[in-house]
Amino acid sequence: MIQSKEDTLKEKCGLFGVYNCNNWNTAELTYYGLYALQHRGQESAGIAVNDNGRIFYHKEMGLVSDIFDHVVLGHLHGEIAIGHVRYATAQERMKEDIQPLVLKYTKGHMALAHNGNLINAQQIRRRLEEQGTFFQTTTDLEVLAALLSRARIRHHSIEDALVEVMTKIKGAYSLLIMTPHKLIAARDPLGMRPLSLGKKGDSYIFASESTAFDAVGATFIRDILPGEIIIIQDGQLRTITTHVSTLSRMCIFEYVYFARPDSIIEGAEVYETRLEAGKILAKECPAEADIVIGVPDSGLAAAQGYAKELGIPYGEGFVKNRYVGRTFIKPSQAMREQGVQIKLNPLRSQIKGKRVVMIDDSIVRGTTSKYIVQLLKDAGAKEVHVRISSPPVTHSCYFGIDTPHRQNLIANNHSVEEIQQKIGADSLGFISLKGLLQTPVGAKCGFCTACFTGEYPMEMTKEEI
Amino acid sequence: MIQSKEDTLKEKCGLFGVYNCNNWNTAELTYYGLYALQHRGQESAGIAVNDNGRIFYHKEMGLVSDIFDHVVLGHLHGEIAIGHVRYATAQERMKEDIQPLVLKYTKGHMALAHNGNLINAQQIRRRLEEQGTFFQTTTDLEVLAALLSRARIRHHSIEDALVEVMTKIKGAYSLLIMTPHKLIAARDPLGMRPLSLGKKGDSYIFASESTAFDAVGATFIRDILPGEIIIIQDGQLRTITTHVSTLSRMCIFEYVYFARPDSIIEGAEVYETRLEAGKILAKECPAEADIVIGVPDSGLAAAQGYAKELGIPYGEGFVKNRYVGRTFIKPSQAMREQGVQIKLNPLRSQIKGKRVVMIDDSIVRGTTSKYIVQLLKDAGAKEVHVRISSPPVTHSCYFGIDTPHRQNLIANNHSVEEIQQKIGADSLGFISLKGLLQTPVGAKCGFCTACFTGEYPMEMTKEEI
Amino acid sequence: MIQSKEDTLKEKCGLFGVYNCNNWNTAELTYYGLYALQHRGQESAGIAVNDNGRIFYHKEMGLVSDIFDHVVLGHLHGEIAIGHVRYATAQERMKEDIQPLVLKYTKGHMALAHNGNLINAQQIRRRLEEQGTFFQTTTDLEVLAALLSRARIRHHSIEDALVEVMTKIKGAYSLLIMTPHKLIAARDPLGMRPLSLGKKGDSYIFASESTAFDAVGATFIRDILPGEIIIIQDGQLRTITTHVSTLSRMCIFEYVYFARPDSIIEGAEVYETRLEAGKILAKECPAEADIVIGVPDSGLAAAQGYAKELGIPYGEGFVKNRYVGRTFIKPSQAMREQGVQIKLNPLRSQIKGKRVVMIDDSIVRGTTSKYIVQLLKDAGAKEVHVRISSPPVTHSCYFGIDTPHRQNLIANNHSVEEIQQKIGADSLGFISLKGLLQTPVGAKCGFCTACFTGEYPMEMTKEEI
Amino acid sequence: MIQSKEDTLKEKCGLFGVYNCNNWNTAELTYYGLYALQHRGQESAGIAVNDNGRIFYHKEMGLVSDIFDHVVLGHLHGEIAIGHVRYATAQERMKEDIQPLVLKYTKGHMALAHNGNLINAQQIRRRLEEQGTFFQTTTDLEVLAALLSRARIRHHSIEDALVEVMTKIKGAYSLLIMTPHKLIAARDPLGMRPLSLGKKGDSYIFASESTAFDAVGATFIRDILPGEIIIIQDGQLRTITTHVSTLSRMCIFEYVYFARPDSIIEGAEVYETRLEAGKILAKECPAEADIVIGVPDSGLAAAQGYAKELGIPYGEGFVKNRYVGRTFIKPSQAMREQGVQIKLNPLRSQIKGKRVVMIDDSIVRGTTSKYIVQLLKDAGAKEVHVRISSPPVTHSCYFGIDTPHRQNLIANNHSVEEIQQKIGADSLGFISLKGLLQTPVGAKCGFCTACFTGEYPMEMTKEEI
Repeated sequence: MIQSKEDTLKEKCGLFGVYNCNNWNTAELTYYGLYALQHRGQESAGIAVNDNGRIFYHKEMGLVSDIFDHVVLGHLHGEIAIGHVRYATAQERMKEDIQPLVLKYTKGHMALAHNGNLINAQQIRRRLEEQGTFFQTTTDLEVLAALLSRARIRHHSIEDALVEVMTKIKGAYSLLIMTPHKLIAARDPLGMRPLSLGKKGDSYIFASESTAFDAVGATFIRDILPGEIIIIQDGQLRTITTHVSTLSRMCIFEYVYFARPDSIIEGAEVYETRLEAGKILAKECPAEADIVIGVPDSGLAAAQGYAKELGIPYGEGFVKNRYVGRTFIKPSQAMREQGVQIKLNPLRSQIKGKRVVMIDDSIVRGTTSKYIVQLLKDAGAKEVHVRISSPPVTHSCYFGIDTPHRQNLIANNHSVEEIQQKIGADSLGFISLKGLLQTPVGAKCGFCTACFTGEYPMEMTKEEI
Repeated sequence: MIQSKEDTLKEKCGLFGVYNCNNWNTAELTYYGLYALQHRGQESAGIAVNDNGRIFYHKEMGLVSDIFDHVVLGHLHGEIAIGHVRYATAQERMKEDIQPLVLKYTKGHMALAHNGNLINAQQIRRRLEEQGTFFQTTTDLEVLAALLSRARIRHHSIEDALVEVMTKIKGAYSLLIMTPHKLIAARDPLGMRPLSLGKKGDSYIFASESTAFDAVGATFIRDILPGEIIIIQDGQLRTITTHVSTLSRMCIFEYVYFARPDSIIEGAEVYETRLEAGKILAKECPAEADIVIGVPDSGLAAAQGYAKELGIPYGEGFVKNRYVGRTFIKPSQAMREQGVQIKLNPLRSQIKGKRVVMIDDSIVRGTTSKYIVQLLKDAGAKEVHVRISSPPVTHSCYFGIDTPHRQNLIANNHSVEEIQQKIGADSLGFISLKGLLQTPVGAKCGFCTACFTGEYPMEMTKEEI
Repeated sequence: MIQSKEDTLKEKCGLFGVYNCNNWNTAELTYYGLYALQHRGQESAGIAVNDNGRIFYHKEMGLVSDIFDHVVLGHLHGEIAIGHVRYATAQERMKEDIQPLVLKYTKGHMALAHNGNLINAQQIRRRLEEQGTFFQTTTDLEVLAALLSRARIRHHSIEDALVEVMTKIKGAYSLLIMTPHKLIAARDPLGMRPLSLGKKGDSYIFASESTAFDAVGATFIRDILPGEIIIIQDGQLRTITTHVSTLSRMCIFEYVYFARPDSIIEGAEVYETRLEAGKILAKECPAEADIVIGVPDSGLAAAQGYAKELGIPYGEGFVKNRYVGRTFIKPSQAMREQGVQIKLNPLRSQIKGKRVVMIDDSIVRGTTSKYIVQLLKDAGAKEVHVRISSPPVTHSCYFGIDTPHRQNLIANNHSVEEIQQKIGADSLGFISLKGLLQTPVGAKCGFCTACFTGEYPMEMTKEEI
Repeated sequence: MIQSKEDTLKEKCGLFGVYNCNNWNTAELTYYGLYALQHRGQESAGIAVNDNGRIFYHKEMGLVSDIFDHVVLGHLHGEIAIGHVRYATAQERMKEDIQPLVLKYTKGHMALAHNGNLINAQQIRRRLEEQGTFFQTTTDLEVLAALLSRARIRHHSIEDALVEVMTKIKGAYSLLIMTPHKLIAARDPLGMRPLSLGKKGDSYIFASESTAFDAVGATFIRDILPGEIIIIQDGQLRTITTHVSTLSRMCIFEYVYFARPDSIIEGAEVYETRLEAGKILAKECPAEADIVIGVPDSGLAAAQGYAKELGIPYGEGFVKNRYVGRTFIKPSQAMREQGVQIKLNPLRSQIKGKRVVMIDDSIVRGTTSKYIVQLLKDAGAKEVHVRISSPPVTHSCYFGIDTPHRQNLIANNHSVEEIQQKIGADSLGFISLKGLLQTPVGAKCGFCTACFTGEYPMEMTKEEI
């Protein structure tokens, strides 16, 4: 409620856009598209529509289903629409930061939305400020818009301006831009964040994940290429390949944790990828046990794969409470000491007296794993063998995943044995990086694995970090 | 928003109550308890506390986590507290109906909350109206309260009055009553709805399901007996067994669908019961198939049991979108015809080209099953074999489950073969009643199976139906 | 927000009802009618409509203009409608108390609204409680409804029942009752609270004050007689005069302070009454001064009359800030000590260096008068002569005016001289009771003057007080 | 709710700022200051505080008393604060436009608020857009901020930058700027909009009108000079007089209509000015009549002056309903035809059978006057003589008053006689311009009278109009 202007922050988000060539209700399609992408951001949502060159929009803090109702959608008419959901970070965020960013520049109205993080946004922003520009949000999207708006006066079209801007910005970004007559999608040259093209009738649709196409009855066409700019204008699709590179570095964490299991990213279905990770993990770090369980929800598929590979029974180990609302009061320390536990409850019948393999997708700080191991022991597990379907996270992400500072990553300064002891597990195993890289079967892209290796996909100055 | 007084409606709800002998914050415990019981009712919630004989309360439409915040809870202090969550029915409900019902009668304040349905509530209400009484809500709880308040003047205590009232009311009910000095719990003589007793320190807690004890760090003590009245007063527990009967008729649908998997009801864990149902179903109605999937969430455990029993691989067949908010706009017919599908999305990799066994907990109208079979076929399933972990529902429930009118139950007027054709399945099998009755392993109670057999646990007049 | 059941409290309210014989939108007429009566109650408002025997309603805390919008009114269709606005008392009131009270009794739905105070409501309530009745609100209206609902079973019609109930209740009440086919208005036998009959086309309208008729384009017909019951049924008006008495005791404070200046009550326009009070006050307590000012708003007319009578210039002495909203933060003691004053600001140009006569409608506790005298002195007034257009308030009201306890009435235990000193005035004068009684020129009724004389219009037991 | 980016719109607003040298709660003082200035803008309000160089703020649509509560104010701590209330225009306004405008530029955070209208804002904006700048609001304040931010890089201080910017902007503006260490106030070189300096203890306060000083217990020091820039830094006041001119053109309409009667502007109290206008009007356009009434609220003082001058009795002619809330439903054409009238109700006793002089502050379109004359005739007035305390409005204002287009001004294309006939008055008289200019007795400034004369205070291009 109380707000303050902060410097650029990274975020992880979901995008949806539609250029209507049929008689679809673009705002309503965007509503359902965003709803399917809600897992990519529960903090805020917005939809902007282009009604004959004038942009109308509605954006608020909250869930898609809470922000939009019949009345609001009924006022949003337009031949083009873009929508955005934003990730909830710990920090109180500003209302001004809610996307799409809607602005008026020399050629009329424009709306922009993005997913990713520009690592040199602050530097550019400072440079622009030194030239007399001011900023009203803390987003790197406003920085990108400032470059774009300036570049536009030197170029014949907004897409040509975007080509220039893409030479200046560094980082991970998938981008949707709506101008009076165009819907433009772009992906950074390393293709670090996903963005796909779909079609519904004669209309073109863009979405962060293919599950949004399923939701609105559209057909998946293809992923936007790394570095590609696609322009939909007059109902026709054009593509600019100036920045397209063969070197792609898709964030592998999209498969591990972030994307919805039913999405197909770069040719690989996320659920199958996780199942496969479980199988490889089983081969690399087998365990003798009575049951394999997964930590809901992202650990479930890997647990099924692990169980199948070793022939150990798979079971559900926890029930997860799913009703957390906007003002949910998390138990205080005092309440937790009194035994209040609200999110996960173990299924005692499955755990009691058994040797349990517990599969989770990752260990970041180690605190959650420790808590869950204890839950299982309290529920009567004889042994708890923890298996993780991604390698130890040793380095921070600067490209849109909100990982903590490096020194708070437990794997950064502890060995696997030390971690095992800290979390109280009877054994601990991580999938190897090599193993993980085999999981997106059929994926045609390269991957960014910097959080596991420190090999960042581009050179970064100290300032950019 | 716009409201109207209607006649008594049945409902399905969750109860939580605490009599504090320690220094617990009763309102906050009730908040977490209700949160754990949220699956029993998402329409409205309320908490009432007893502060030295004066009852303060807060109740609203919405989810527990949306209704209560730090400010509201901070105003609710009391040595006793009861809370209630209510089931969302299709019909617009009245704010006045939100429980707990708080009233002032000859002995001071009283708050009541219940779960169940009194089949003779309307008759009693009409009789009371003919005597000059009026009603401000549409709940059968107000009818019960009217009887109780009247009976109280003929008895020495509220519990004695309750004993009398229980001779007059017919139906299923679990009940919590809070008076200036007492917390009272009661269950109908057939024990049709669950209600359990727990303890946390020296404090007594009541809850509809044992998962609420886990949530607040309490220990499960026992189920309230059918017909039993338990009084907590001066920190001591007393019990009245006048109505206690050996003939119990617990609603078996609690295991099949309604209760949380981690709850233990009448000695049987719900998850295990469902797993067992899957196994028995597999024996009774095996299928040749490549994969067994469950319809989330209540079909998952049975699917696991079915798969295990037959040695067919278990897999997740669907991703379910969980972000439905209060004002969520369900796709219109027009949108659905355009392919908008928002709740379930099949995991194509698991389905495509496979012979699929799809497990669901029940078939009521048949429309959902038909829709899901089609989803699977569209996703490429070669065959879809539907198996249902409860027998065909042929009769309406009058005891708190909101089943449709009998003629809308597909199994009431169609054979299994006809249903199979109507839903488009390649084969269809239901667990037998005998099989279902074996699933609550260890349960010490009898069951109401009226919805499968029409053998209602009590005689009912036409009017009561 | 947090609520608790309290015992019966008195209140002061506004009523509006319409029985439609034309094609009027009854809810919308009621909306404008209530809006015109908003000064009679800013705490809450409600409208109930009778749609073929079923009552729909909407009621909330807040102002009429905040509670109802196009959407809400669009859902309220009915051939009969009643509405109510309620006075804001210091104490946090319960949502359940918001009127109209809507209930279902043996003959169907009924909605009731009233203005006044039943002095024996608590006794009746206790007696009813002892018979087993409980109450869900703290209003005396619920007590009246309980009597009415009971009486109905002994009588052929609700109006006959009302005749009986009126023999049992003591106090001041104007009443509207809506049943499936009737709109009923009644006034207590002393006619203590106003209620008028109007007509718009062929439709009948009832309102607490005639200004509401002006607002909706209706014509004032007459005041309801003390003790009269009017029934509108099948578009026809009938009247029951059983309780009609020649002895009327209209609350004279309606003229002094509460009613809107443009209302005509019992034949006398309120503004003119106040003007006349000023003139009489001038004759009884003249002052030598340079300017006469009134305390806004109820002191303005009397000030004009006072000025005119003595030939002293009238002027505005204060500007009043009118933007106080629901969550307005009143200045804390600390802020007031820092000089923060928010409601009244003196017009220095009118005050400075002058001998000022300040007219107010009444002195209750004396604190406001003291504050205002000080404001004037600080603004440079040479002398401040306070004149009050009602006699000293020496007794509490038990009939609907929310006066403080008798010992907090400054005139109860202080002489005029003492009051003058306490409030810091250079002189102080009150109109005489005899003078006040001459002010409603043309009024055909008798008056209750108990707050000035202690001569209450009916005998009261200690308990009733 | 639904928003769209529009081009620059004019507005009329209220400003309050405080630089704390004592221990005042700046946000709370600003709250009360804005509350006193609420009449200058009821559409939205905002407060920004400077907490050690970081700006926190809260701004919303609605009234000051609805937007801010204890919780919100409790989060706003700062040594400097500025606040703003904005005028409600017919058009739906954007949330982004709510002031203060908070931004980050090369020297840190800055918050700005203004009152007025820059006539060349659109031209500057277009020029800046052509240079690549984009805009996120429709305010001319954002244009000013863009110039200021750019100028800052060429100057040593923000105040020096402001000196430069003031050479570029044309129009009426009073301005508050808050930077990490400074509170700056400025007024356009013609001093067209008011802005005053006050002091409370050692703290400096700025406000649009002196009534805000009264509200917070501050002392009025002086008006900001036309063209003056005042800087408060380190608790000290500095002034820059570069643009100070002897030629001032204060908007005379502030006295006529807009300012609060208790404010003292340029040395003249508004109430007294209006009183004087009534007297001069009486001399210039006397009438034979029985009563003089004013149209509330701005016509009341003039009516008192008029009555006094001619010795005709003054009376209140109308009661005004003051409870219009945010969602108030104005009567539809259909309702108005049914006689629904909600804002003004005539006091029949004062009007009936009398020759009435009705004083209003101005005639713009003529429709209101016509309506009110009719109201009076319907209430029984024998004659209605309309007298207007400002000259005929013949020209549009481009400096912050939201007058309609010139052709909609009735006095632009009709003679006084024609207007009289159109509004149905028995006679009509306007004060002369010469007369009006005599009313601010003691005012030391010159006045803009363009709306009466077309002599605009600066040259304007077609584009600027």
